[in-house]
Amino acid sequence: MNLAPSILAGERLALARLLSKIENNMQEGLTALNELFPHTGQAHLVGVTGAPGTGKSSLVNQLAYYYRHPIQGQTPRKIAIIAVDPSSPFTGGAILGDRIRMQDLAGDPGVFIRSMAARGSLGGLAQTTASLVQVFDAAGFETILIETVGAGQAEVDIARLAHTTIVVEAPGLGDEIQAIKAGILEIADILVVNKADRPGVESTERALQNMLQLGHPIRNMKRPEDAQDRDDEQQAQAILPIWVPPILRTVATQGDGVSELVRAISDHYQYLHDTGQWKKRERNRLQNELDNLLKDSLVARWRATISKSEYKYILDSLVERRISPHQAVESLLDGGSPGKSF
Amino acid sequence: MNLAPSILAGERLALARLLSKIENNMQEGLTALNELFPHTGQAHLVGVTGAPGTGKSSLVNQLAYYYRHPIQGQTPRKIAIIAVDPSSPFTGGAILGDRIRMQDLAGDPGVFIRSMAARGSLGGLAQTTASLVQVFDAAGFETILIETVGAGQAEVDIARLAHTTIVVEAPGLGDEIQAIKAGILEIADILVVNKADRPGVESTERALQNMLQLGHPIRNMKRPEDAQDRDDEQQAQAILPIWVPPILRTVATQGDGVSELVRAISDHYQYLHDTGQWKKRERNRLQNELDNLLKDSLVARWRATISKSEYKYILDSLVERRISPHQAVESLLDGGSPGKSF
Repeated sequence: MNLAPSILAGERLALARLLSKIENNMQEGLTALNELFPHTGQAHLVGVTGAPGTGKSSLVNQLAYYYRHPIQGQTPRKIAIIAVDPSSPFTGGAILGDRIRMQDLAGDPGVFIRSMAARGSLGGLAQTTASLVQVFDAAGFETILIETVGAGQAEVDIARLAHTTIVVEAPGLGDEIQAIKAGILEIADILVVNKADRPGVESTERALQNMLQLGHPIRNMKRPEDAQDRDDEQQAQAILPIWVPPILRTVATQGDGVSELVRAISDHYQYLHDTGQWKKRERNRLQNELDNLLKDSLVARWRATISKSEYKYILDSLVERRISPHQAVESLLDGGSPGKSF
Repeated sequence: MNLAPSILAGERLALARLLSKIENNMQEGLTALNELFPHTGQAHLVGVTGAPGTGKSSLVNQLAYYYRHPIQGQTPRKIAIIAVDPSSPFTGGAILGDRIRMQDLAGDPGVFIRSMAARGSLGGLAQTTASLVQVFDAAGFETILIETVGAGQAEVDIARLAHTTIVVEAPGLGDEIQAIKAGILEIADILVVNKADRPGVESTERALQNMLQLGHPIRNMKRPEDAQDRDDEQQAQAILPIWVPPILRTVATQGDGVSELVRAISDHYQYLHDTGQWKKRERNRLQNELDNLLKDSLVARWRATISKSEYKYILDSLVERRISPHQAVESLLDGGSPGKSF
């Protein structure tokens, strides 16, 4: 049964079924994906990443709620949430409070929440996420929120799927938490200090500001002719539109700051389109997906060519330290004969 | 220049040079690795993983110090530390206190500390770590401590390099921190509640105990004949030696509980050898490394066969949504001609 037409017609049940088929790597999922792909490219993909304890799940929840209940005069948007986060309420690792808040979204046909277990290969997880994004995109969801726990490079790779990446911080998580963010800050388009009603919000903001300046040398660059000019940053922006990641305060549990965050997301969307960055990010995104799929296919095809006994012989030789790992690879790929003595 | 003989002779400078060559993917590193590999397989690889803020770096530090200054009657062990953790003092993201504590180990020829930046591909990081482990192993380091930040699957993969995996917790890091550990707990051989002088240590222990019972169904299994017997867990252990991950308390900054942790590590080493698990883990470890190297080699070899213009044509078709990602892969691998119109 081809699920693609039902997806394009907006049938929710078909959508849920297709997502499962894709997660289970079934051929039917693949067929539908091929058919749906020409209908993608409309949705705004927004990644939300941050360490456990920053309250990013609540923030995602509030964002979705806001998009569904915007200020007067604005049209509600169709929202999909993909939670790739073992600590997320959407994936079941939640504290009770979050589960209750989630009910704000339950029963709303304009919201679809999909959680993914973060087990197994994270490469595979990024790929499955990319596929789910395509389905939601083709199904007409206008904003797709991708929630990841921002602690490892692999999670950063998932966040890279997004057009706009929000990095969530919280006050008082300690210096170590700050340090771990150095790499993640480089991919941040918007910075949020959530739980901003807690003590230490100023020092967290200051730390983020400092890291931003370290991570974005272009904004520290001084042109010789106006080295003394304290407005040089503004001038540089007038010449070339540069996105300076804003640092926003929110209290997700109260909904404070969420409308400002929605505006920043919308501003970034506009910036991407005005500067041609949207097309560039789309291309990077798709190239990344292509390369990952290529890798998997190459391995699967090679596996089909090698006999189990040959592989076992090489592995045995490795375990017995008769050959090194690199020598084992050479033997397997260059058809080292099983009769060869190591 | 072949560095392998100098490594085997225990020359510290040659060791540092080889590690750099391996990290920079140089041919000289590869040659030495091939020559050193037959001399590996002696070291006890101990992974230490945990979220930022648990104080695992201090614990690693204390462990190394203890191994160098054991109780009377025991011989000091040669210790290597590989820190794969952006928040580690060894990798430079440290708070001042940790840097000071590190000086306990400075100048001791029986300790070698190597830190790795957690940027770039984590797959590559796991592989480089595996290579560094081999060098230390061949160089006669008896215990190799591998410190990773335990938050993502990729970090777990690095922890899988180890024979013995220690998962570090701390009281009061919140429910979300606990939840994220569900996956990591499955690979824990020893659980440590560090900062055990803080409030909440009992509830952290209780949470870990509960998760352990969820994660290890064998220990909850009741045999019909003694369903009422509260000693059935002990009986099951008498029949089949099962490693029950102990939950230990430490205060790394004071050194409290470190000798008990060293004993647990030694017990686990003994358990692995007594039950044949050591050989099994060695095989898994090496198979994992082999498979990762195979994947990289397959991709590199395929890349050398494809023309830039062909790849660009396919990527363009993908970006313009004329073909789907899976169709793009098929075209590239099955020699879809650039003249083919999509």
